[in-house]
Amino acid sequence: MTEPASPAPDDVQQHLREVQELLARHRLVENLVHRQDMPRHDLVESLVHKQHVASLQERLDGLHPADIAFILEALPLDDRRFVWDLVKAERDGEILIEVSDAIRESLIEAMDPAELRAAAQSLDADELADLVPDLPAQVIEDVFQSLDVTEREQLRAAMSYPQDSVGALMNFDLVSVREDVSLEAVLRYLRRFDALPDHTDALYVVDREAHLKGLLSLEALLINDPDHSVGEVMTRDGVISFEPQDDAGEAAQAFERYDLISAPVVDGQGRVVGRLTVDDVVDFIREESQAELLARAGLREGEDMFASVWDSVRNRWSWLAVNLVTAFVASRVIGLFEGSIEKLVALATLMPIVAGIGGNSGNQTITMIVRASATGQVTPEAFMRLLRKELGVASINGVLWGGLLGLLAWLLYGNVSLGLVMTAAMILNLLLAATAGVAIPMLRIRLGADPALGGSVMITALTDSGGFFIFLGLATLLLL
Amino acid sequence: MTEPASPAPDDVQQHLREVQELLARHRLVENLVHRQDMPRHDLVESLVHKQHVASLQERLDGLHPADIAFILEALPLDDRRFVWDLVKAERDGEILIEVSDAIRESLIEAMDPAELRAAAQSLDADELADLVPDLPAQVIEDVFQSLDVTEREQLRAAMSYPQDSVGALMNFDLVSVREDVSLEAVLRYLRRFDALPDHTDALYVVDREAHLKGLLSLEALLINDPDHSVGEVMTRDGVISFEPQDDAGEAAQAFERYDLISAPVVDGQGRVVGRLTVDDVVDFIREESQAELLARAGLREGEDMFASVWDSVRNRWSWLAVNLVTAFVASRVIGLFEGSIEKLVALATLMPIVAGIGGNSGNQTITMIVRASATGQVTPEAFMRLLRKELGVASINGVLWGGLLGLLAWLLYGNVSLGLVMTAAMILNLLLAATAGVAIPMLRIRLGADPALGGSVMITALTDSGGFFIFLGLATLLLL
Repeated sequence: MTEPASPAPDDVQQHLREVQELLARHRLVENLVHRQDMPRHDLVESLVHKQHVASLQERLDGLHPADIAFILEALPLDDRRFVWDLVKAERDGEILIEVSDAIRESLIEAMDPAELRAAAQSLDADELADLVPDLPAQVIEDVFQSLDVTEREQLRAAMSYPQDSVGALMNFDLVSVREDVSLEAVLRYLRRFDALPDHTDALYVVDREAHLKGLLSLEALLINDPDHSVGEVMTRDGVISFEPQDDAGEAAQAFERYDLISAPVVDGQGRVVGRLTVDDVVDFIREESQAELLARAGLREGEDMFASVWDSVRNRWSWLAVNLVTAFVASRVIGLFEGSIEKLVALATLMPIVAGIGGNSGNQTITMIVRASATGQVTPEAFMRLLRKELGVASINGVLWGGLLGLLAWLLYGNVSLGLVMTAAMILNLLLAATAGVAIPMLRIRLGADPALGGSVMITALTDSGGFFIFLGLATLLLL
Repeated sequence: MTEPASPAPDDVQQHLREVQELLARHRLVENLVHRQDMPRHDLVESLVHKQHVASLQERLDGLHPADIAFILEALPLDDRRFVWDLVKAERDGEILIEVSDAIRESLIEAMDPAELRAAAQSLDADELADLVPDLPAQVIEDVFQSLDVTEREQLRAAMSYPQDSVGALMNFDLVSVREDVSLEAVLRYLRRFDALPDHTDALYVVDREAHLKGLLSLEALLINDPDHSVGEVMTRDGVISFEPQDDAGEAAQAFERYDLISAPVVDGQGRVVGRLTVDDVVDFIREESQAELLARAGLREGEDMFASVWDSVRNRWSWLAVNLVTAFVASRVIGLFEGSIEKLVALATLMPIVAGIGGNSGNQTITMIVRASATGQVTPEAFMRLLRKELGVASINGVLWGGLLGLLAWLLYGNVSLGLVMTAAMILNLLLAATAGVAIPMLRIRLGADPALGGSVMITALTDSGGFFIFLGLATLLLL
């Protein structure tokens, strides 16, 4: 955080560098001592050491929890644990909530049950629900016992919803008012608070049974005459609310589309049960897009950069295994034509081009379709229209690039027929890529599956095996 | 939008279906009339037609601009223009701001200068700045003449900042107050407003020269006694502000990290010049992650699903051209070893596996590094550590998968040496992939370039050509 009028964005990088410097100084002293074989508790060493640790601790105490989380993520394991031990115990909880899953594991491993209990007890029910899956069973039990009835109910509710639902993202902090009171009364009521829940842009107007009647925005509260009643100035129509089992992705799109800051979450009977706020939605959007980028490269989850080699191998092996199988299949397709290759070795040289360009083109098509379908704009009726368009694009690219490559093949090997086979194979493989690029995501939507998942592997497998088969098959039929 | 207590998320899909149905009915009548060769202005037809158009128009009038934008994006060109003509002229501006760039072009093409002028004049300066690049020069000139001095200044300012800067995202709507007035006076002042600027969570406390002194959050205004002065309850320290030339991506990270709703934008002298709000930040985050996904597949920009085939070809050709070059280079590498392949055709069958798995593994590494570096957590000191780790992962994968493939090659071709060459080539190509996967993004960071851009093409080119060279080279040396 900065003084007013000085910009903040790269401050956290500055914090990171400072902490790294302090750590380096600390390590330097330690190393010196070790190398000279001085007694570990030598007075001078101990004093210098304490001084460095104290200045590091002071530095950390002044930082926002999100900044400490950032620094912890950027540090190698040994430094990370050292810094983590220096963080004040009462801040452990809020920092654990901020760090990414992979890092959280490494921090929790370093804590004993009493520390974990204390950290967990400092959190709200909705935050606790995020942490619980990583805690040891005994700690969870203890924490649960320490909650009051309402909190226990809230924790149970928050944990009962699937990961990507509104229920898993919502929190329970909200201010509600009655329809028949005056704005003056609401203003007096708010002055009794020490703080409003984060991201309060509106108060929820409810009846005795907590049924949502409307929203009283802070704006309406502030610009209207205090003599008005809540019912006179509140928003009744067009209030956007969610149910806990709603899909978080769709809620996020509604937040984006209607520029929401917070929205009430109601149960089947229209009773307010919680609140969704833009900060959690933003985190969700970021995590979702990160997960998509990672999934494209076959990474199961975000990796701790400094995790062990074994953890990384485990995170990546399944994708490599799948690719190995598809590569092996493609290789067996080539195996069918070994006789042809022996007769005309140029085929071996040219075949990877046909397969490769088909894969690239298919991935372009599938990326387009997946992107459009993610927003819900691709309807089944559009299928034929999109297919026709993609086949058109593929034909043009096929004639253009296929023609160019055919020409090159002819020039390189002095064989016109080889050039023609090259061109024909390119066109056919691009048409295959376009068809698969439209059909694979469409089929997945029809089946209710996520169109983004694994589409790239499937299309590359098809265009590799297909490309080899088309090119080598055509060559065998026409040239040999 | 929905009544309170009914969930909203899939409503926009419902709107889309309804509009499509009304359109279909309208087209049906038109087709019938055409087919039976009835006079176009036949009274009955005209009445039915008018009725459908009227109900469609009524439906559109009730929709949020963002929902109309969504529907326009999902409709093919002819339907889109038909619907666009039915939208009330005074709503054109706000809808043009909501649609994606590709769609906006198609809508603007259908409008005459007078309509464009009217649409532009309904917008704020910051919104106008987004629209200007798409408008004809004469319209821009006319609009500019119609602005008052302040608005002209704001428009000029908004347009002077590069696309990904805070200045390009900020708006000019804000409420500022003086430090020495009472909260009571602020409350009275706010009651004179008809509406507060969107996403107002705090008022900006400034001096006579507009220097930012602090923030008065609505929360502080509401929970404190009205007799307090602004100066007594405002936030002075830790106010996060930006300068117009700051990078929008870094500002977005600060919004995420500190859960901001709005933040002041100040000039070099600390004077408030604008305001950044979370809705624009959310749009920026979504666009950024979409652009990254598109760039991975070599798409220059988001495509209008219903754009012409030629537009799509142009959007995709450069990536295909680059891939064609790299594929051709890889093919020439194979060409060097045609003599070896003629002697042992199994080499042609097995070589794509070595190249392909290298590419997959390299892409996993580069995705990890790019992701970590995007958050600023990769420091140059971490380079050697990350490289060691990735080389470790590559060695394990190489021995594991390379060993398995070597075994398969041995079994398939009854040639132990061929199996050993296969294993060795896999290990070496995975080590090459790991090195390049760390080095390419690191080098780009060192050079100040975007590490995400084109990394995937570069690494695939390397592992393809490298994989072929290593495998065929080893085989030539050891087997022939």
